[in-house]
Amino acid sequence: MSGGRLGLTYELVAPSREAARRFARALTVEQTVEIPEGCYSATLEEEVVSRVEALEPAGEGRWRLAVSVAPEIVGGDLGQLLNVLFGNVSLFQGLRLVAVEWPETILADLPGPTFGIAGLRRLCGVERRPLLCAAVKPVGKTAAELASDCRSFALGGCDLVKDDHSLVDQASAPFGERVARCQEAVERANAESGGRTLYLPNLPGDPAKLAARRESVRSAGCRGVIVSPMLFGLEATRHLARSRELVILGHPTFSGAFFGAEHGIARDVLLGQLYRLIGCDGVIYVNAGGRFPWTLEQCQAVNAALRAPLGRIRPAFPVPAGGVQAREVGLHLERYGADTMILIGGSLYQQGDLRRATARLLSSLEAAAP
Amino acid sequence: MSGGRLGLTYELVAPSREAARRFARALTVEQTVEIPEGCYSATLEEEVVSRVEALEPAGEGRWRLAVSVAPEIVGGDLGQLLNVLFGNVSLFQGLRLVAVEWPETILADLPGPTFGIAGLRRLCGVERRPLLCAAVKPVGKTAAELASDCRSFALGGCDLVKDDHSLVDQASAPFGERVARCQEAVERANAESGGRTLYLPNLPGDPAKLAARRESVRSAGCRGVIVSPMLFGLEATRHLARSRELVILGHPTFSGAFFGAEHGIARDVLLGQLYRLIGCDGVIYVNAGGRFPWTLEQCQAVNAALRAPLGRIRPAFPVPAGGVQAREVGLHLERYGADTMILIGGSLYQQGDLRRATARLLSSLEAAAP
Repeated sequence: MSGGRLGLTYELVAPSREAARRFARALTVEQTVEIPEGCYSATLEEEVVSRVEALEPAGEGRWRLAVSVAPEIVGGDLGQLLNVLFGNVSLFQGLRLVAVEWPETILADLPGPTFGIAGLRRLCGVERRPLLCAAVKPVGKTAAELASDCRSFALGGCDLVKDDHSLVDQASAPFGERVARCQEAVERANAESGGRTLYLPNLPGDPAKLAARRESVRSAGCRGVIVSPMLFGLEATRHLARSRELVILGHPTFSGAFFGAEHGIARDVLLGQLYRLIGCDGVIYVNAGGRFPWTLEQCQAVNAALRAPLGRIRPAFPVPAGGVQAREVGLHLERYGADTMILIGGSLYQQGDLRRATARLLSSLEAAAP
Repeated sequence: MSGGRLGLTYELVAPSREAARRFARALTVEQTVEIPEGCYSATLEEEVVSRVEALEPAGEGRWRLAVSVAPEIVGGDLGQLLNVLFGNVSLFQGLRLVAVEWPETILADLPGPTFGIAGLRRLCGVERRPLLCAAVKPVGKTAAELASDCRSFALGGCDLVKDDHSLVDQASAPFGERVARCQEAVERANAESGGRTLYLPNLPGDPAKLAARRESVRSAGCRGVIVSPMLFGLEATRHLARSRELVILGHPTFSGAFFGAEHGIARDVLLGQLYRLIGCDGVIYVNAGGRFPWTLEQCQAVNAALRAPLGRIRPAFPVPAGGVQAREVGLHLERYGADTMILIGGSLYQQGDLRRATARLLSSLEAAAP
């Protein structure tokens, strides 16, 4: 990458070098001027159209393309950044964005985590071991039932308890009531046990209700929330992070279509870089060996991206989830290291006594501390 | 579908009926309670877990699955609706959402188009022929240059002129200046020609600047905007539509990853139903035979979904784009019918004289009127 430009690496599917060259040219035009050659000036060709920096074979019928983009065309706009990365070009086929190099001028408009790994450790009072987050669920339970589960998780010693991302404002557990009751239950449990469990409600994205819901979260005394950036809005997530008030755990719902083998955005770019850059202090993903077909290598790539140095942007916690079995947590942590937040729901519920199951799991986390 | 429930049809990839049954069960649990069996009550199994209504073979290793969902678990929330449709289940593989049946209780929370086909025809003063929209571009031009292009398109008789979706707030053409100059240029052209061209600026999604930008749009006198729902935010798009002030043209950027052959959401569901339901008066998609690999059948499915009866929701204009050639417009309209808005940019710019190229194209549209 030439200095100061946004560096993008794609994998292309193309039958020949000539076809790959044509694809590369189509991509550089589509992600910038989006108009046929000859319809714009030589100055715009030089200043606006992205530059092919390298095009190399990457296996049978695959090519690795590096382009660079002038940050001026992004104009400090997150939506336009995503237009350039994978906007109209998402409508092609056989194209994966696999790496991004971020110049300072682009990073300047991205808040990154407010707390990050170090800040979240301070909030939870946990210096070295991995963090434990429990998920309270399912939709259909009353606010009182959910609060009772929160209490058990907190008494068991969980560092965080988060709402299931499907809990919004259903009649079974309306938002304001749920947030107040769950937070109160966790605070009482903390007072009894001397613990410091944080409760993070799921914050739905409707802009008409957002201010009132943030006020409910604030007045209940919650320190953070979970949001689903693809639904809450990527722009809205960045905006929330910029207020620097709340811990934000990012949930991967509705993102799965991006993770095609030949088309989409690599997991470590979307969840590991973009979710972190727009402000997530921790990013939930679906763990290898759980209910979803993700490989260990894919998970490790997300972990690495969340923790890697990235200008002034703080590192964020990887949060493996989605069918993590309590009995296998030691194995996961051996692989993933201490700067990991394990998110467990079902496996604790399966053990019946939530408090005891949580306490047992926590002992194994303490044993795994470096 | 049983009455009043949300009906969802998916295509699954599974090697046997037994594997398809297991996939179906995993899906119904994942899209609702998201917790292992045995961890929730029989009441929640009955009231919350979605029901398998049918599972039929659909070709070699493919299955067609119909499920129904109690609308209560959606709780009037757009994000949670998307969670149910393709949220966590997007993280599976080999799963496509191909059809949705919308009960009244779900539709009640979705605004649909404010103007729709009939309202947009009234605004443009065009009773029967297809509408013509020109795209002003590219990024890198000054506001004065873009305004000059707008003037030419308007004098040529275009019904609408829209910003390229990459025009945000770049230093080359800052948002407020661009909107004011382009709108003024179109109004002057209208005054000279007696035309009624509408100018639709691209509205970026940053919530910190949204109120001021809407005020710029309003004070300039624009009647509508283009938004890119996947970037602007699906929730934010619905919120904008609910104000019932502006024509909204929806742009498909960043949506392409959803259109996998074996995984994702069918084009007619995402662009044809969801974009319409959240409030787009017209939905831009990439036309068959243009720069993108979409088939005529896929385009026709989007057209049909945008125009089909859907409770009280108004029909929206299909807006084929992405390499539509001016000389082929007659052919497209023969296929697509008069209730179509043709969006052309590059092919007009290629002809050099924008005003003459637009006027020529308009004649062919008038010839194609029913």
